[in-house]
Amino acid sequence: MANTNTITIQRRVQWMDTDAAGIWHHSVVIRWLEEAEADLHRRLGVSDRTFGATPRVRTEFTFATSVQFDDLVDVTLTVSALGETSITYHLEVRRGTTAVASGRVIAVLIDRETGEKRPWPDDLRQLLAP
Amino acid sequence: MANTNTITIQRRVQWMDTDAAGIWHHSVVIRWLEEAEADLHRRLGVSDRTFGATPRVRTEFTFATSVQFDDLVDVTLTVSALGETSITYHLEVRRGTTAVASGRVIAVLIDRETGEKRPWPDDLRQLLAP
Amino acid sequence: MANTNTITIQRRVQWMDTDAAGIWHHSVVIRWLEEAEADLHRRLGVSDRTFGATPRVRTEFTFATSVQFDDLVDVTLTVSALGETSITYHLEVRRGTTAVASGRVIAVLIDRETGEKRPWPDDLRQLLAP
Amino acid sequence: MANTNTITIQRRVQWMDTDAAGIWHHSVVIRWLEEAEADLHRRLGVSDRTFGATPRVRTEFTFATSVQFDDLVDVTLTVSALGETSITYHLEVRRGTTAVASGRVIAVLIDRETGEKRPWPDDLRQLLAP
Repeated sequence: MANTNTITIQRRVQWMDTDAAGIWHHSVVIRWLEEAEADLHRRLGVSDRTFGATPRVRTEFTFATSVQFDDLVDVTLTVSALGETSITYHLEVRRGTTAVASGRVIAVLIDRETGEKRPWPDDLRQLLAP
Repeated sequence: MANTNTITIQRRVQWMDTDAAGIWHHSVVIRWLEEAEADLHRRLGVSDRTFGATPRVRTEFTFATSVQFDDLVDVTLTVSALGETSITYHLEVRRGTTAVASGRVIAVLIDRETGEKRPWPDDLRQLLAP
Repeated sequence: MANTNTITIQRRVQWMDTDAAGIWHHSVVIRWLEEAEADLHRRLGVSDRTFGATPRVRTEFTFATSVQFDDLVDVTLTVSALGETSITYHLEVRRGTTAVASGRVIAVLIDRETGEKRPWPDDLRQLLAP
Repeated sequence: MANTNTITIQRRVQWMDTDAAGIWHHSVVIRWLEEAEADLHRRLGVSDRTFGATPRVRTEFTFATSVQFDDLVDVTLTVSALGETSITYHLEVRRGTTAVASGRVIAVLIDRETGEKRPWPDDLRQLLAP
């Protein structure tokens, strides 16, 4: 069975993503994560039900090296766990074979009206579970 | 009568606002404009009725010089015109007596439900008119 | 002869590009412009000589309609004029056949050491001229 | 002796900091952290030696609740540890008495020329140590 809950996208470090140290600003990793997440959820046909309904409760990133303007990176996002109401992503960013950054992000599904946590509906659970 | 439709705020160029040229990225001017706009509208007691209901239809900025990390600037925002449905702002950014950037931004008031343009209500008109 | 000084890229409105009005924030147009500019200059093989050396002196954008999370847009950037030291870009953003935004941006070539304006070298002029 | 290595700044959630869920985007916490860090380092007189020379190697944030446009928050940054070459910050974000977010960020001092890690000079160590 094909693994539906992982995705790799390619991105370039843009000029706006750099800072006066001459390299990327580390916060760009959050943009890349969300762009991979959007592509993954679109492919699964669930982005209209998940985006804006899965606030982050925890983010962790480790940075191994820096990248520069115009560098090309592979951004791999994988669903690593699905709890009663939570989803955990694992992120890897590589430039060629060089590890740039890795991360773990935990979000929870909420009811958009009340803002309260709610269990994953069965169909979303089946699509997103690792 | 005090001029109620102009405001000056002070801001520093933050590290995130710089790029690999070692100076600010010009797009920061939009952040500063909106922070001044929010302060002005809060002072007038109207921000809950205007923010998210005044999409920009035109932005123009001229850049005279650049600023760097930690530079302190004065950002002056003034309502320069109020049309049937539109509002025009004039922006000046200075570092001390040095002109850094100036701009003109035109927004229109919309009905949040329909997204359609609508005339300024009398009370908003009175508060915002130059 | 192929027109070398225009490029069209496709982009999606990302979640980070939206604001509490439920639509994109207009400043995203600057990110798209720069991503098209980077692709164009990379294709011409000049990005290491132009990026960080062409500060903006003027930006103008007109917004015709808004776009939303996950919308797909075509971003077309064209060099419309090349002066002694300046370059003028024209930008068009469309969602399908709908005009979203257009813009005009003027930058000048500077000497990275002195920060002073300088004339376009012949090879850059030949590659970039419309 | 006054505690020199902690600082609290006040910030408002700006319109650009929100997303289509109607609340802040969690990445704003990085901006606030860096603005507090810049104020702290400026007060200690070291920002020209530390900014651009202390890349992040680890960031961790926990989000307890969300904030909205125009909300006022207190952002408290404290140096919690100083290693041979590293600095660890602890961050707390509160809206009134409500905990919004907390975080831990580890950076390392590098030599700007070589990009290699280097031990804290004695004077920086004395100023920054908790």
